[in-house]
Amino acid sequence: MSGNTLGTLFTVTTAGESHGPALVAIVDGCPPGLPLSSEDLQRDLDRRKPGTSRHTTQRQEADEVEILSGVFEGVTTGCPIGLLIRNTDQKSKDYSAIKDLFRPAHADYTYHHKYGLRDYRGGGRSSARETAMRVAAGAIAKKYLAAQGIQVRGYMSQLGPIEIPFKSWDGVNDNAFFSPDPDKIPELEAYMDQLRRDQDSVGAKITVVADGVPPGLGEPIFDRLDAELAYALMSINAVKGVEIGAGFASVAQRGTEHRDELTPEGFVSNQAGGVLGGISSGQPIVASLALKPTSSITTPGRSIDVNGESVDVITKGRHDPCVGIRATPIAEAMMALVLMDHLLRHRSQNADVKVTTPVLGQL
Amino acid sequence: MSGNTLGTLFTVTTAGESHGPALVAIVDGCPPGLPLSSEDLQRDLDRRKPGTSRHTTQRQEADEVEILSGVFEGVTTGCPIGLLIRNTDQKSKDYSAIKDLFRPAHADYTYHHKYGLRDYRGGGRSSARETAMRVAAGAIAKKYLAAQGIQVRGYMSQLGPIEIPFKSWDGVNDNAFFSPDPDKIPELEAYMDQLRRDQDSVGAKITVVADGVPPGLGEPIFDRLDAELAYALMSINAVKGVEIGAGFASVAQRGTEHRDELTPEGFVSNQAGGVLGGISSGQPIVASLALKPTSSITTPGRSIDVNGESVDVITKGRHDPCVGIRATPIAEAMMALVLMDHLLRHRSQNADVKVTTPVLGQL
Amino acid sequence: MSGNTLGTLFTVTTAGESHGPALVAIVDGCPPGLPLSSEDLQRDLDRRKPGTSRHTTQRQEADEVEILSGVFEGVTTGCPIGLLIRNTDQKSKDYSAIKDLFRPAHADYTYHHKYGLRDYRGGGRSSARETAMRVAAGAIAKKYLAAQGIQVRGYMSQLGPIEIPFKSWDGVNDNAFFSPDPDKIPELEAYMDQLRRDQDSVGAKITVVADGVPPGLGEPIFDRLDAELAYALMSINAVKGVEIGAGFASVAQRGTEHRDELTPEGFVSNQAGGVLGGISSGQPIVASLALKPTSSITTPGRSIDVNGESVDVITKGRHDPCVGIRATPIAEAMMALVLMDHLLRHRSQNADVKVTTPVLGQL
Amino acid sequence: MSGNTLGTLFTVTTAGESHGPALVAIVDGCPPGLPLSSEDLQRDLDRRKPGTSRHTTQRQEADEVEILSGVFEGVTTGCPIGLLIRNTDQKSKDYSAIKDLFRPAHADYTYHHKYGLRDYRGGGRSSARETAMRVAAGAIAKKYLAAQGIQVRGYMSQLGPIEIPFKSWDGVNDNAFFSPDPDKIPELEAYMDQLRRDQDSVGAKITVVADGVPPGLGEPIFDRLDAELAYALMSINAVKGVEIGAGFASVAQRGTEHRDELTPEGFVSNQAGGVLGGISSGQPIVASLALKPTSSITTPGRSIDVNGESVDVITKGRHDPCVGIRATPIAEAMMALVLMDHLLRHRSQNADVKVTTPVLGQL
Repeated sequence: MSGNTLGTLFTVTTAGESHGPALVAIVDGCPPGLPLSSEDLQRDLDRRKPGTSRHTTQRQEADEVEILSGVFEGVTTGCPIGLLIRNTDQKSKDYSAIKDLFRPAHADYTYHHKYGLRDYRGGGRSSARETAMRVAAGAIAKKYLAAQGIQVRGYMSQLGPIEIPFKSWDGVNDNAFFSPDPDKIPELEAYMDQLRRDQDSVGAKITVVADGVPPGLGEPIFDRLDAELAYALMSINAVKGVEIGAGFASVAQRGTEHRDELTPEGFVSNQAGGVLGGISSGQPIVASLALKPTSSITTPGRSIDVNGESVDVITKGRHDPCVGIRATPIAEAMMALVLMDHLLRHRSQNADVKVTTPVLGQL
Repeated sequence: MSGNTLGTLFTVTTAGESHGPALVAIVDGCPPGLPLSSEDLQRDLDRRKPGTSRHTTQRQEADEVEILSGVFEGVTTGCPIGLLIRNTDQKSKDYSAIKDLFRPAHADYTYHHKYGLRDYRGGGRSSARETAMRVAAGAIAKKYLAAQGIQVRGYMSQLGPIEIPFKSWDGVNDNAFFSPDPDKIPELEAYMDQLRRDQDSVGAKITVVADGVPPGLGEPIFDRLDAELAYALMSINAVKGVEIGAGFASVAQRGTEHRDELTPEGFVSNQAGGVLGGISSGQPIVASLALKPTSSITTPGRSIDVNGESVDVITKGRHDPCVGIRATPIAEAMMALVLMDHLLRHRSQNADVKVTTPVLGQL
Repeated sequence: MSGNTLGTLFTVTTAGESHGPALVAIVDGCPPGLPLSSEDLQRDLDRRKPGTSRHTTQRQEADEVEILSGVFEGVTTGCPIGLLIRNTDQKSKDYSAIKDLFRPAHADYTYHHKYGLRDYRGGGRSSARETAMRVAAGAIAKKYLAAQGIQVRGYMSQLGPIEIPFKSWDGVNDNAFFSPDPDKIPELEAYMDQLRRDQDSVGAKITVVADGVPPGLGEPIFDRLDAELAYALMSINAVKGVEIGAGFASVAQRGTEHRDELTPEGFVSNQAGGVLGGISSGQPIVASLALKPTSSITTPGRSIDVNGESVDVITKGRHDPCVGIRATPIAEAMMALVLMDHLLRHRSQNADVKVTTPVLGQL
Repeated sequence: MSGNTLGTLFTVTTAGESHGPALVAIVDGCPPGLPLSSEDLQRDLDRRKPGTSRHTTQRQEADEVEILSGVFEGVTTGCPIGLLIRNTDQKSKDYSAIKDLFRPAHADYTYHHKYGLRDYRGGGRSSARETAMRVAAGAIAKKYLAAQGIQVRGYMSQLGPIEIPFKSWDGVNDNAFFSPDPDKIPELEAYMDQLRRDQDSVGAKITVVADGVPPGLGEPIFDRLDAELAYALMSINAVKGVEIGAGFASVAQRGTEHRDELTPEGFVSNQAGGVLGGISSGQPIVASLALKPTSSITTPGRSIDVNGESVDVITKGRHDPCVGIRATPIAEAMMALVLMDHLLRHRSQNADVKVTTPVLGQL
């Protein structure tokens, strides 16, 4: 299949460009009987929405979603759910400055070589604007998962050089950074303000956690839960790395340190990040992703034009100095979509399985 | 589809357990006319084969592959290629010691909960033995890619705490570690010898590079080349993290540092690892993966049995003290399979595209 | 994947119910550079549109399609094409009469058992209204295929007991029945008028032909071209049978009669319908489909309600006395979508194939 | 995906040519805990096996299947099941006579144009020999379905001009034709004997019935149960047509005649063939398929060679005068595979659905 569909049983297909008339998505495979309204989707859309603080782009988008199908009398019918978000703030600015050149670290050059032409307005399809539909679709998965006792939450674990150790979920959604430590916020604010003065951008690290996931999700040996999470999280704009549990720290670990021992009371640690052999263990699923610094910065850079001639690129327009700041709801959505798909996949083959062995939690 | 098929157009489906009669694979979608013999596959199989040095498991497997179909008069026919590897060294040892308990950090617990029963002999399907077929299938992709001027090579970039900076491709295949720096080998040998005395295991980091990849491979916005690489590499046993290009280092980078500027002579750097917007840029594709320490170690550990009762686990048998040592050919195979699949996918939709803009290499 | 996506590389995903706010579709995998406007889609939509003659339902739907994405400056970009059709004529009639009972030969009973609830307004998702999006998507495929010299056309080959032998393509689109023989039209008109007086409905047979299809399309041994055509055509509402070439007539044929002999000038016959071994031969692709009589008729019928109690069903509302009358554009669309998908699939694997053997036409 | 995999959740991937070393298949997605041995597969393989009567090819193949994986201690583990059948009777005859020409009505011409080369020995991949693996895989589905109370059975409903009305299931497997009427057998024998004297071949019609299928199987609007059956049955060699229920007879039917009315005691008829709106109704699933006459006949025919020159084709070797005679077990297997896949698909999305409305049988 072409590249704009995610999932096997719970599938999300999206379309739409940054400055086209609208974004659209079709969510197929949602179980019937789930109470659903556009408000359920709007909540997460508003968390991702630009222009909510001085640390994100000032582009104004209401991101109002309309449910076109698949919901009847307030509940899902089991038929595909059509979603529509009209683009409202498409500045009719002149793009002639960039239409024939390639902005460094953007997809301009690769889209040009792949398709021979491209919608250069605001990055077209390659714009992070597209992630609005991921969040909308993810909200459907989140609501279904919540009814199964599964909660997917994320936070910023690092902004540029500043590490943000997890303190508590309280207040994560009450600050512009999704920081799990309120005391860190002034430092983050100061860093961002300096960054703007430097006319530069910076990367970030996001951590997503799913609690309440039952053991058994994941389809080895290729469609492992961790492999599908890596795929889904890496598919987010600007992501350059994905870790499950200890991730790259496990390179320097000893086996005696990494292995999560089991006791009748539960697992004694969670280096695995909740996945063993590609299947969920019943522990929290923990994944982290690295986002690169925003490519659009006002400091001029060298590049070439479509004729291969040398040019200087000066990026104007409205951009996030750190794309990672708005990435938390997107990362949550992607994890929720993967878990939803695998919940359905696991059910299909193993509906008859009965296990008497107690399910372990984490100590 | 169920989880044992990889790819969309160039598909690899595998089956087989560690101690079953055989491993089998079907490679579908290989273009016709490719000269192919079992020797082409054997070369990489021998690189992955156990028992070739004192630093890997002493299990003896010839890993002789038989081509069952899809090749006629020495060339591929375009029909599916069946591959068979008989398991020869299945020690008829007594598994009663582990059949009813879960080895920490293994898939025993999760397979038990997912399927309700499991083939406990040597880990059954969850054993790294399965990766032999990945290597065999990957060798087919490698041979086709090579004819297109695409070369996929890997090396060990870190063993436990020891970083191994890349020096040269020469000799990478001449040492047990796939070290790109021959001078490092004594240090690696000494570390491994001490590790065995400690009855412990350790993790490793592998880096894979593809040279000669044309721009255009990758199908946004989900089936990005980097997303599919993350999926394929994370699906390898024991992998806990995947990076593209700068990876997690990009978190602390500034935009001015990360963005790879373009000049008529080429890209000035490759922080992106050869992928922009999910599409290959023409630069080398660079991916790294983190492998956790081997779970099977002779130091006893705490666990539970199928009744939830506390037990002590003493792992016996023949195991790799560092699974990463044999992982390089596997990682190469997975990258080759993803590139092969995307070469075919890119062709299908964009066969008519003509681009006059020169393709940039890397400075 | 869930059931609302068609195709492997050129995919069409649709959503929308008969009386919901809108129908929506996402067409993914369309090659870039194809000139496309909503007018290109409207032409076929108008051919399918209800209310254009007294022999079809009087429901009034403009079926105006909006292109939401994937087209920039008049040509396709290679990114997914979003399509939207608002439902305008949703009679706010009272459905309480049918909400709790099952209309015979409709999907009411099966949707109820599958999903536990259903959108009963006008059949919801099971309504033929959904086929509007098939026609819109098919028009994109038709336009691309036409540029390759491939033309997909259909006609009505039988209405109830009246067989309509093919005379000529001229005028097929100038009559309400898509009759290939203008002289038959009065007989068809008279039959339909009597049918309405009888308060009954009738079946029909449609034949679709693709000219100019090159040899090589189709992916044995499962995804044969004829198998995929059977799937796509059988997926149209009310279709109960599909034939390729001689179809069921081949049961009574002798081998000497059925086999299409080859001469340097071309094939001497086309019993095969243009497909040999599941691959196109270069001859015209010929497929026929049987459509059952409309289930909604005003003659009362026996049924049960959701409690299993006996009820009498009297269907009201606006219905086609013969669904086959409007089916020709739908059948053309489905064949075009399958050919388009297989054109891309064939390319991907066999781009390097060179054949010197001349391509045969048909004598 | 490439064309040699069938199914979405219960997938069957096959490889192997008529005269290659072996046929191989991987069945993925089989639920764990199903008792399975090679004997379960051998039963149906023997029903399809050639050389069991004078009315089929005299090629001798033991068709002995080996289970390579996915079964442990007599039951399935949920891991993929590898199947192997060695080809034993590959006559080392000289194929030079046909290697450079195209046998009429065979896949020679189309494989040549698609792939540029082909394994010409006995038709290579396009040979019906491949169907042995369909039967083996289908036997696994049949055994699982049987445990759910679902029984899939087929019979020959027409041989050339001779219609065979269904009398009873008794004895269907006791005659070479799978005739449901023992009294017809002498007539069938006489017809076949004359056919051989005429050096000709003939077509046949097979009907397959599934009893005990619960309502709800099928995934509209594309992956309808009837659409997937049409795909699977049309993918069998030599099949030119597929019908569900009344099939092409419904063209001339009136709505009052076709609609299957419902009563509290059950459906009063089954014109629909057990599928409404693409979903099983709980009635028997009834499908018929048309098989063309064998293409290989000893009566010479006109054709061309790879240079486009005119040639005469005289087919030698061992062939079935009516491929339909051995097709019944194959058709059963394909229906079983589709039902199995849809049973898993239905479960996944609708596991929570509770319906109190009684399930109707057929009167």
